Amino acid sequence: MTKRSAGYLTVVLTSLVLAANAHAQGGATDTAIAAARDWRADHGPEIVQGFAELLAMPNDAKDSENIRTNAVAIAALFAARGFWIQLLTQDDAPPLIYGSLEAPGATRTIAIYIHYDGQPTEDAAWTHPPFEPTLYSRAITEGGAPIAFPETGDPIDDEWRLYARSAGDDKAPISALLAALDALSAADIPLTSNVKLIFDGEEEAGSEHLDEYLAAHQEKFSDVDLWLFCDGPTHQSRRPQLVFGVRGVTGLEVTVYGPNRGLHSGHYGNWVPGPGWRLANLMASMKDEKDRVRIKNFYQSTEPLTAADRAAIAAAPAVDDQLREMFGLAATEAKGALLAKRIALPALNLRGLKSAEVGDKARNIIPPSATASIGLRLVKGNDPEAMLDLVEAHIERQGYHIVREDPDAEIRATHPLIAKVMRSGGYPAVRSRMDDPAVAPLVDALGRAAPDLILTPTLGGSLPLYMFEEVSEAPIVILPIANYDNNQHAADENIRVGNLFYGIDAYAAVLTME
Amino acid sequence: MTKRSAGYLTVVLTSLVLAANAHAQGGATDTAIAAARDWRADHGPEIVQGFAELLAMPNDAKDSENIRTNAVAIAALFAARGFWIQLLTQDDAPPLIYGSLEAPGATRTIAIYIHYDGQPTEDAAWTHPPFEPTLYSRAITEGGAPIAFPETGDPIDDEWRLYARSAGDDKAPISALLAALDALSAADIPLTSNVKLIFDGEEEAGSEHLDEYLAAHQEKFSDVDLWLFCDGPTHQSRRPQLVFGVRGVTGLEVTVYGPNRGLHSGHYGNWVPGPGWRLANLMASMKDEKDRVRIKNFYQSTEPLTAADRAAIAAAPAVDDQLREMFGLAATEAKGALLAKRIALPALNLRGLKSAEVGDKARNIIPPSATASIGLRLVKGNDPEAMLDLVEAHIERQGYHIVREDPDAEIRATHPLIAKVMRSGGYPAVRSRMDDPAVAPLVDALGRAAPDLILTPTLGGSLPLYMFEEVSEAPIVILPIANYDNNQHAADENIRVGNLFYGIDAYAAVLTME
Repeated sequence: MTKRSAGYLTVVLTSLVLAANAHAQGGATDTAIAAARDWRADHGPEIVQGFAELLAMPNDAKDSENIRTNAVAIAALFAARGFWIQLLTQDDAPPLIYGSLEAPGATRTIAIYIHYDGQPTEDAAWTHPPFEPTLYSRAITEGGAPIAFPETGDPIDDEWRLYARSAGDDKAPISALLAALDALSAADIPLTSNVKLIFDGEEEAGSEHLDEYLAAHQEKFSDVDLWLFCDGPTHQSRRPQLVFGVRGVTGLEVTVYGPNRGLHSGHYGNWVPGPGWRLANLMASMKDEKDRVRIKNFYQSTEPLTAADRAAIAAAPAVDDQLREMFGLAATEAKGALLAKRIALPALNLRGLKSAEVGDKARNIIPPSATASIGLRLVKGNDPEAMLDLVEAHIERQGYHIVREDPDAEIRATHPLIAKVMRSGGYPAVRSRMDDPAVAPLVDALGRAAPDLILTPTLGGSLPLYMFEEVSEAPIVILPIANYDNNQHAADENIRVGNLFYGIDAYAAVLTME
Repeated sequence: MTKRSAGYLTVVLTSLVLAANAHAQGGATDTAIAAARDWRADHGPEIVQGFAELLAMPNDAKDSENIRTNAVAIAALFAARGFWIQLLTQDDAPPLIYGSLEAPGATRTIAIYIHYDGQPTEDAAWTHPPFEPTLYSRAITEGGAPIAFPETGDPIDDEWRLYARSAGDDKAPISALLAALDALSAADIPLTSNVKLIFDGEEEAGSEHLDEYLAAHQEKFSDVDLWLFCDGPTHQSRRPQLVFGVRGVTGLEVTVYGPNRGLHSGHYGNWVPGPGWRLANLMASMKDEKDRVRIKNFYQSTEPLTAADRAAIAAAPAVDDQLREMFGLAATEAKGALLAKRIALPALNLRGLKSAEVGDKARNIIPPSATASIGLRLVKGNDPEAMLDLVEAHIERQGYHIVREDPDAEIRATHPLIAKVMRSGGYPAVRSRMDDPAVAPLVDALGRAAPDLILTPTLGGSLPLYMFEEVSEAPIVILPIANYDNNQHAADENIRVGNLFYGIDAYAAVLTME
């Protein structure tokens, strides 16, 4: 495999040769894909059942006992398939699962990133408990009904859905990769690349320790030629996609204050200021009633898309009307602009609001505070800290005195408007070039598994890919397998079984690419 | 006792006669007050301990088992003191405790209203569990420390605070009334009025069944000459007060919508509208960044204060600066206007906000909805439904389509802005005239128990007094005993022991007024 450090001319030539030979050379990949299909046709019920066992383990990154249980179980599954496995640890952080498998004669090393933790769950909102995987005849929202798990020999329906936290985000790739390895092994098909595994246990908690893990084990990854990130959903058209970038992410929590205790709204209403009104006005000043972001310079640092990016967007199927209908929206906030183009801009998201209580628990008080949790999605060019600086400058321009902890009596006495701003961690976006020659064999192999493959400049979601740019010069691409309607991060997360099975074919192709 | 149905001339003459004879005739009341003081000096620890037992009973009106336990226990305490007691019931509603005690030779009947339920509790916010009454050396916020309950013979400190739900709102009057009855009985001092008790078990839940109770038992109350409402706090100057009116109350809950499910904020942020932004803009349109209510005609129906009301406000001590400091506010929302005058205007209060989660539980989703719980406090002239109509008209003017249940797919597809509005029950304000002759003996008697008594046109809080205007023509006054800083409706509710003891004196005076 040609390293990216080769000169420009070599790269271009290699790319052309690869392209010319692609069809002829792809025979081994085609055989591997056929083997994957045979394998899943014969072992479908066992694959689904095995996946359900993986999903039954609670996997909130902050739940340190359960997250270790996940790590040990997943490590054992890959060790059983010949990987040399290490559970890297760091204080109380979830373990990083590292794995390595040498392919005889291979000159290329690919690294496969997956995360095995899931978003925290709000049990009450789920149809079934999030860690009791439940199989449905189709999506619940499409009238599906719960069905029994299939038994050996039963046929599998691609439209089945398996409901559980992390079914889509991000345990499906683990299960699909295991099945692909089994299929190739059963058919005696050799891998064409050395494979390294890097399974993150705290991606949903912000991958806080990943950079330290990478720094401490840099030598394990210095020979990687291609990073493959296995996360995120396939295209909303249901067609598979290969993605060349991700949005970055950051956020902040803003708390504004009323009286220093909850006060009876009758005795003091009209006189003591209500923090809910203050927060509403502050939030409305950030994004107005026409959904326009009013924070100064919010879009200024954004790098424009390349010509190749724009061409890829134009070639992809438009799914906007279908999505709008599916999500129950009479209109988007984009005034008709395409989702694919809006994803190339930074986004300001109001993730949560809280002041006292609503519903049956609401009480007739003037609450002491009101809090907004704000998420930012970033694109190439946006520095996370600089973007938060812009938001804070905006808050100050509204007259607020910014503090980092709840205000004491003196600060309260001297500032009518006080905002506590707590920045969360974050990281920048990454976007690889679509014309990088190191990805050409991958594009070819995946095209054999999925002839309708879409090339996408950037995913809307965020992954901490910037860290990998720091330990290796290899290009980074993302290979998602989950259905786009997997309710990722929300209640009733699910995988469409056909997408899990596509993943098996895709990994068989990846592991045998020329 | 002269009924209010007497002609105007009779009323004025009676009033003058009463006023002239007041000082000479008050000897019996003075004796009763002295007896109350002796009694509490001798039995202070038992009174505090007995009150703590009353407070240990959880009393959320929606908790039907516990609320009945309260009713039975309180009924037994008054039955033991010679009252003829009935627990009036109505389906699953909390019982209404009715009591009657005839005073030999009395020609006047007073009715005493107290409520025995409390606001729902949020245990986590309390220093001690809300139903584990805890005695403090003084207010927690003033550096008080927990102390043991006093034993028989121990002295009592007026500055002690007893912390528990309903300590101030509204079980203190029950305990004080019991002690006053005991004191008069021990000293063989006869009552000068027939007494009727009417103890409400769901005031904090909106007194939903009180009107039906009153309608079903109208004959029990048709002979009442004076309604005495025992609820609310004393004046913020710590001086006792007698109050001639209350604000009315109503409210509504507004939910606005984003996508029909939580969506990943990366994949859809910038394209799918966020309900939090919508709600913030809608709330900001109701009350702006300068705390001005922007709802059309919000103040139009308000009846102005009378000359007597304005004079009473001018005579009362100004407590605004002291309160502002105590509540940790650099400024009020009133631009310098007095609290007492602001209470004479309707108030718009944002009781709670909720959309998805904040803090550790916040997730990177675009939430499906955002909800605001809005409370209105009303003054004389404001019709509750008409005020809610004004708020709804405002919501519609912002472009929202109003629904009464979560929107279905068809409504979603045809309306970009949807607001679910749920009106809560409510009732109008009441304000008795300060110059009503039926209240003159009461003003005189209370003035003997508390020479620094303040006359207040209206309380900021709400009580369902309008219902009593419907069953009898007698005037309605409010006699509060709780300290104003009792954290009513909030965490760490408490009674200052000196206020409980003032209540004993006050009831001794009321029960023996000329």
